[in-house]
Amino acid sequence: MTRPSRRLHDELFAAPALLECFSDRARVQGMLDFEAALARAEAEAGVIPAGAAARIAEQCRAEHFDLDELAASAVRAGNVAIPLVHALTSAVAREDPAAARYVHFGATSQDAMDTGLVLELRAALDWFDAELGRLNDTLAALAWEHRSTWLLGRTWLQPAPPVTFGMKAAGWLSATLRSRERLLALRRRVLVLELGGAAGTLASLGEHGLDVATRLAGARKLTLPELPWHAERDRLAELASALGILTGSLGKFARDVALLLQSEVGEVSAAAVPGRGGSSTMPHKQNPVGAAVILAAATRVPALVATLLSGMTQEHERGLGGWQAEWDTLPELCLLASGALAHALELARAVDVDARRMRANFEATGGVVLGEAVALALAPHLGRPLAHALVERACRRAAAEGLRLVDVLAAEREVTSHLSSEALEALCDPERYLGLAETWVDRVLESHARRPSRDEPCP
Amino acid sequence: MTRPSRRLHDELFAAPALLECFSDRARVQGMLDFEAALARAEAEAGVIPAGAAARIAEQCRAEHFDLDELAASAVRAGNVAIPLVHALTSAVAREDPAAARYVHFGATSQDAMDTGLVLELRAALDWFDAELGRLNDTLAALAWEHRSTWLLGRTWLQPAPPVTFGMKAAGWLSATLRSRERLLALRRRVLVLELGGAAGTLASLGEHGLDVATRLAGARKLTLPELPWHAERDRLAELASALGILTGSLGKFARDVALLLQSEVGEVSAAAVPGRGGSSTMPHKQNPVGAAVILAAATRVPALVATLLSGMTQEHERGLGGWQAEWDTLPELCLLASGALAHALELARAVDVDARRMRANFEATGGVVLGEAVALALAPHLGRPLAHALVERACRRAAAEGLRLVDVLAAEREVTSHLSSEALEALCDPERYLGLAETWVDRVLESHARRPSRDEPCP
Amino acid sequence: MTRPSRRLHDELFAAPALLECFSDRARVQGMLDFEAALARAEAEAGVIPAGAAARIAEQCRAEHFDLDELAASAVRAGNVAIPLVHALTSAVAREDPAAARYVHFGATSQDAMDTGLVLELRAALDWFDAELGRLNDTLAALAWEHRSTWLLGRTWLQPAPPVTFGMKAAGWLSATLRSRERLLALRRRVLVLELGGAAGTLASLGEHGLDVATRLAGARKLTLPELPWHAERDRLAELASALGILTGSLGKFARDVALLLQSEVGEVSAAAVPGRGGSSTMPHKQNPVGAAVILAAATRVPALVATLLSGMTQEHERGLGGWQAEWDTLPELCLLASGALAHALELARAVDVDARRMRANFEATGGVVLGEAVALALAPHLGRPLAHALVERACRRAAAEGLRLVDVLAAEREVTSHLSSEALEALCDPERYLGLAETWVDRVLESHARRPSRDEPCP
Amino acid sequence: MTRPSRRLHDELFAAPALLECFSDRARVQGMLDFEAALARAEAEAGVIPAGAAARIAEQCRAEHFDLDELAASAVRAGNVAIPLVHALTSAVAREDPAAARYVHFGATSQDAMDTGLVLELRAALDWFDAELGRLNDTLAALAWEHRSTWLLGRTWLQPAPPVTFGMKAAGWLSATLRSRERLLALRRRVLVLELGGAAGTLASLGEHGLDVATRLAGARKLTLPELPWHAERDRLAELASALGILTGSLGKFARDVALLLQSEVGEVSAAAVPGRGGSSTMPHKQNPVGAAVILAAATRVPALVATLLSGMTQEHERGLGGWQAEWDTLPELCLLASGALAHALELARAVDVDARRMRANFEATGGVVLGEAVALALAPHLGRPLAHALVERACRRAAAEGLRLVDVLAAEREVTSHLSSEALEALCDPERYLGLAETWVDRVLESHARRPSRDEPCP
Repeated sequence: MTRPSRRLHDELFAAPALLECFSDRARVQGMLDFEAALARAEAEAGVIPAGAAARIAEQCRAEHFDLDELAASAVRAGNVAIPLVHALTSAVAREDPAAARYVHFGATSQDAMDTGLVLELRAALDWFDAELGRLNDTLAALAWEHRSTWLLGRTWLQPAPPVTFGMKAAGWLSATLRSRERLLALRRRVLVLELGGAAGTLASLGEHGLDVATRLAGARKLTLPELPWHAERDRLAELASALGILTGSLGKFARDVALLLQSEVGEVSAAAVPGRGGSSTMPHKQNPVGAAVILAAATRVPALVATLLSGMTQEHERGLGGWQAEWDTLPELCLLASGALAHALELARAVDVDARRMRANFEATGGVVLGEAVALALAPHLGRPLAHALVERACRRAAAEGLRLVDVLAAEREVTSHLSSEALEALCDPERYLGLAETWVDRVLESHARRPSRDEPCP
Repeated sequence: MTRPSRRLHDELFAAPALLECFSDRARVQGMLDFEAALARAEAEAGVIPAGAAARIAEQCRAEHFDLDELAASAVRAGNVAIPLVHALTSAVAREDPAAARYVHFGATSQDAMDTGLVLELRAALDWFDAELGRLNDTLAALAWEHRSTWLLGRTWLQPAPPVTFGMKAAGWLSATLRSRERLLALRRRVLVLELGGAAGTLASLGEHGLDVATRLAGARKLTLPELPWHAERDRLAELASALGILTGSLGKFARDVALLLQSEVGEVSAAAVPGRGGSSTMPHKQNPVGAAVILAAATRVPALVATLLSGMTQEHERGLGGWQAEWDTLPELCLLASGALAHALELARAVDVDARRMRANFEATGGVVLGEAVALALAPHLGRPLAHALVERACRRAAAEGLRLVDVLAAEREVTSHLSSEALEALCDPERYLGLAETWVDRVLESHARRPSRDEPCP
Repeated sequence: MTRPSRRLHDELFAAPALLECFSDRARVQGMLDFEAALARAEAEAGVIPAGAAARIAEQCRAEHFDLDELAASAVRAGNVAIPLVHALTSAVAREDPAAARYVHFGATSQDAMDTGLVLELRAALDWFDAELGRLNDTLAALAWEHRSTWLLGRTWLQPAPPVTFGMKAAGWLSATLRSRERLLALRRRVLVLELGGAAGTLASLGEHGLDVATRLAGARKLTLPELPWHAERDRLAELASALGILTGSLGKFARDVALLLQSEVGEVSAAAVPGRGGSSTMPHKQNPVGAAVILAAATRVPALVATLLSGMTQEHERGLGGWQAEWDTLPELCLLASGALAHALELARAVDVDARRMRANFEATGGVVLGEAVALALAPHLGRPLAHALVERACRRAAAEGLRLVDVLAAEREVTSHLSSEALEALCDPERYLGLAETWVDRVLESHARRPSRDEPCP
Repeated sequence: MTRPSRRLHDELFAAPALLECFSDRARVQGMLDFEAALARAEAEAGVIPAGAAARIAEQCRAEHFDLDELAASAVRAGNVAIPLVHALTSAVAREDPAAARYVHFGATSQDAMDTGLVLELRAALDWFDAELGRLNDTLAALAWEHRSTWLLGRTWLQPAPPVTFGMKAAGWLSATLRSRERLLALRRRVLVLELGGAAGTLASLGEHGLDVATRLAGARKLTLPELPWHAERDRLAELASALGILTGSLGKFARDVALLLQSEVGEVSAAAVPGRGGSSTMPHKQNPVGAAVILAAATRVPALVATLLSGMTQEHERGLGGWQAEWDTLPELCLLASGALAHALELARAVDVDARRMRANFEATGGVVLGEAVALALAPHLGRPLAHALVERACRRAAAEGLRLVDVLAAEREVTSHLSSEALEALCDPERYLGLAETWVDRVLESHARRPSRDEPCP
């Protein structure tokens, strides 16, 4: 009989690499990697016989274990490490009963589960770094290509003075650059060994505790922490937060694109992957699937971060409830963030800018968004309040009567007595009112060029 | 090649019945049940040929569909209903190409997904009702059995005047009674059909829309809502909230039991299921696995409720991101609540009360918790503040010197001049200071006896 | 010296009536109302002298107490009820030292704080009911007025077949009708007395406990619960959830309106309150302040619901941390919901529909959204898949070349051989493709007309 | 008429310094500091007359503004910056009408609000750094003093092998050390200027934009960001997360202490501040107020972090709803974290360890928690599973019959044939089974000694 699965949306919401990374098999392999390395470290430290370590390590292959049986046993054991250790012990005993005595020697379930998790998280962090690198390169290319492609700015979902599409892309990029920076910086706090035995003292290993821990950390290329962190979970909460922030920034990107994709705006299209986003009923439809997935992740991830934070108040040496709350929450959070990132990369690559439509949308406003420019120019003559009020009135008239602002203003004595018609035209020319848009792009691209790599010591 | 699964903790965290209920197969079957019923309703209404409906209904069996393929196609389609409709259409076409034209006729993906979900939720609600009934009966029995078994009250995690264990159980019960009431009351708002077609108007069915919808709702024993609720998700949010509240109340129960199980308190034991809660390293250990699972659920579920609430701001006729955020969140929430409930039932059944230890823990406080009684008795003579201060002093002395409060007080002139030694002894007798504890138990049990059943019209 | 305040955004984010309701003065008055009624009930029950009750009640006026001093003392006492009881005792003592002995007699701080809170919540619930009534009437009027005003439907933020604006309004209304229903139904679970004394047994009142509790509940027109609920907080969590759901539905309304207000869509305007929503820098700007406030509430409230749910695991007779977490969270949640509701009412009243623009936006799509209608009409002839594909192709061509779909289709042999040009024109006429839009409106309005009132026994 | 306030719990839940920091007056002053510095920077850059800048700066004192009026006007304006700019303009105009033209020149409301906020956050971060320094010193002293004071370890709230109290303190300290590190590292991402004008381009300042921004950042000692961050809010989300993590770690500390304070455990007392934690009704009561406040914060803060993350999907150049959701949430989060930290410091200073009680609690378990040691010693002789089972049986017998484990084991042939009675006694001696407890303490204290200071370039 097969056990019920729930993975219909797995590939939609998560990146394939991360699905592998947090699969049942990978979780079990993570724990087995811990057990194998523990045995070897203990053998090197003279705690257990070298032969036993070799026998144990040989059996530490996830594909030899029955995942369904482990899951069933976890119901009674309270976690999956206990039945796994039992199964591993039996497997070793079948080959070498003497060696079986040394399986999991001196460790506690949480040592295996936490270290196994950290090994999975390292693989996940490597993937995030690489994929973020790709996204950042793509956004940088967009920013550079459209450094000067101007369009309506929009604030409070209402028209505002013009910006450039490159500046928009640079804004998205600046956030994902900072996210990558955070994900690099936390590696040294997160990628640490867990080894403390029952209550964290490693008393089970007598005088060899520190030696074994040091060797084990070294073998798995993890940092040896100051002390075990069974009930101090800030390390995981930091990772969760950093991914939460990344997902939030991707959500902002997706929302922007989705708004630009509206048929009434139409300034961007996202060249459809064939078959992607069709409707079951509407032949004309191209649903922005990627944006939907990213926004769904941005809706779900914040709550998962809160769960990790709420679960931090873990009792004494190892907690009751808080730790268990992490087991599925952190992988799910990583998966959702990975899906958002993968879809963001695909979306960024698909974005196609329609500069003509951008111009048309600007024209359709009558240019009232440049009222600010005129008001500022009039301010020295009339004072800011008066200038603001005059232009506000003109904007309303332009909107109400479907006129261009420049034409309404050109008919106002109070304007023409201070501004020549050339000056007025210039003030109402969006291309002349882009301020630092291109400078901002350059600054972000510079920062992108300077980005730290994972191989350098991180800042 | 098998797809990666993540279900190592499924049986630990969820009730088996609910795992079935929200399995991939069940979700697909839910949608197919919709498609079959839709076709039949359309045939009855004369929209499609009766023969076509029969052909379609024949194919609506989840076991005929390749779930992995559906999941893979969902990546491009953006949801799983679209590839399912394609696959169903192909399956029908293989038997009867003419009938295939009428698959999913006039409906939209979300109609199938939402109605399918509602059918799953109905099964889940039935299970919750039954299991809550069992839990309530168990708690009622506990309350009745220990109606008069007294123990220290505890407030702010500090000793307080005595209560009875029955009153504690009655408190837990009162909350789960209200939860059951809420879950019954929301059925008429939640168990409703979704059928609106592309934009909710059912224009695709021309003049037959209302007829088809009415028949379809009737066939599936669902309520026909005033209008489709594609983007109005308060119904689901209400269910999520009600389960969130239930889980919170179960968390309170689990925390109480876990605290009573501490070896230093030891007033309760939870007869261990053999093999349950052993430690991988500590032979003496009996971990309260059930309590841990419930508390983990109580840590995770609130955030999932927040996700559902956050996702409610869905755009226009059908939203972008908010709807997708529900897909896995609501099932997960139901599963976690089901696990908490199942473990709570098991825990309630296992609870074994140690009345001797309760007495001993009371004695160990020196009886200071009855200071309130003495202070109240002295208040008419000395005024409340003075009486309070006098007893406070005596309590500190009793604690500091390891004396019984009654003995300290008996040595105080200000006390003995107002209270006889019999009166003082009586005031310091916990059995005489239980107030309404038994009355409260009776009142809750009465309410339990009066509980509405699912078959009666709910309140 | 004045204490620092933080209320710059109070009036922006909350309804004035609710700001009063949860002000420091009102919270203190709520507790004092409890103390006065407690004394009277105790006098009636013969527990304390009638004269003392009168003296106590006389002093129970919040304006006589120094709120700053109470707040300062709360730091040491751990809550505000303790210093309030001290201050009340002193105040009574100044008039009648004998009566002072009977202040707060037999009660605990939480009795006063919880009952005081419930009295505030009743006032809040009354306000919500009335304001929701006004909102529902306004939405009903909108739905009726625009029962047939058609516009593009939009799904996934992309164009979809037409709906009517009345149907949109009916959708909003259906949700707020259900919210009102929920808020009525929970009154009997929420509007209950809290009176249990130190550990909930009311032992402090000896044999008079139930009599006093009954009288007190009656005097304040509250329900007497089965037992005290000091540590069972589902009642408050239910209220929080119901307001969370309401806020979510209002958020959906606000997002819809904000999207319609975009200058590129422009199908709705919200006649600006003079001075509302101007920009500090942009003269042309009319910021949708109301929508922003509602959406901010919809962003903030879900998390506050989660806090209430997370805080439910309260220890034993009265908890440590969970209760304290409620104190400011629940009022804040009520305030944010009230602000959202008040702004929603104002926004609903201001909404002005531009039917011409709706038509224009439809025309601008080339009518491709009616592809569904044509595909359905062709399906019996060509089969659903072929019909769908043919129309999909035509839609792409229409979009790419800026043609009307009807014209593209009229040039297709496969279409014209099955559909006459009249039939094709009819299929592409949005007014003929509104399906049940008006029926849905009628059904919701009927439900609105049937709505329960607070005076009837609620369902 | 005074406006309703809600600050009864302000001093209980927040540190006084932070209440000042986020008071209405401070928020207004933060914006005025921006306006003054903007005017000066513009004067230096030659954009406005030097005299005007001086006139403007003179008026930028919060005490000159009517906060109630600003709050009232915010209702219509949608934020508080707009009426503040109006009021400032009027104030300047009264002295120098010409200068009034240059108030807020070229900036947008959000520039003033965000930069003002950053200035407040800097003050808050300085306070957190200093207070965390004090807490860390206190915890370090505790860890050192009790480096070897042994007590029962506890996992899953059940007895476990012994640890030392110093190791517990070192665990708390290790987490708060990492929190301080995070709060230092984020300064360069958070303490940045916001200046972009209406749509972020600073077009309003023509060619002088970058010059003004650079001068303004320099004057306020803020970093000039790559580009304005009006709608990219990861900076604030990072701060929120870091404070959320800190609060979680403090919650873990408070829960541990609260559990140790239980009368049945009694291993720690927290010397009561006079008047702190008394009960309104129970004379014997010493409520752990500080722990309650910290745990309340740990319950509330995670949800506020989620709010900030949820609010990140802000639309285009400046968002609708997401930004507004931050205004009160971030200060509230800072305040709650500050209260938790201040109470944690007070609690850490008050903690008094009762080593005798620690020993007694260990004895009361019969020493079964050392079963692990015996099982490990027997494992080489019997194999791990057999050894484990044998000791498990002995533990159950010891518990059931109230015997010492060592005595039960001494009567078992299978034990005595492998272990001498001296060896057995040694294995069952808690002082000899502390493993690396002291080493862990030393490692954390070393890390504490190495801690970066704010004055050094942060890592």
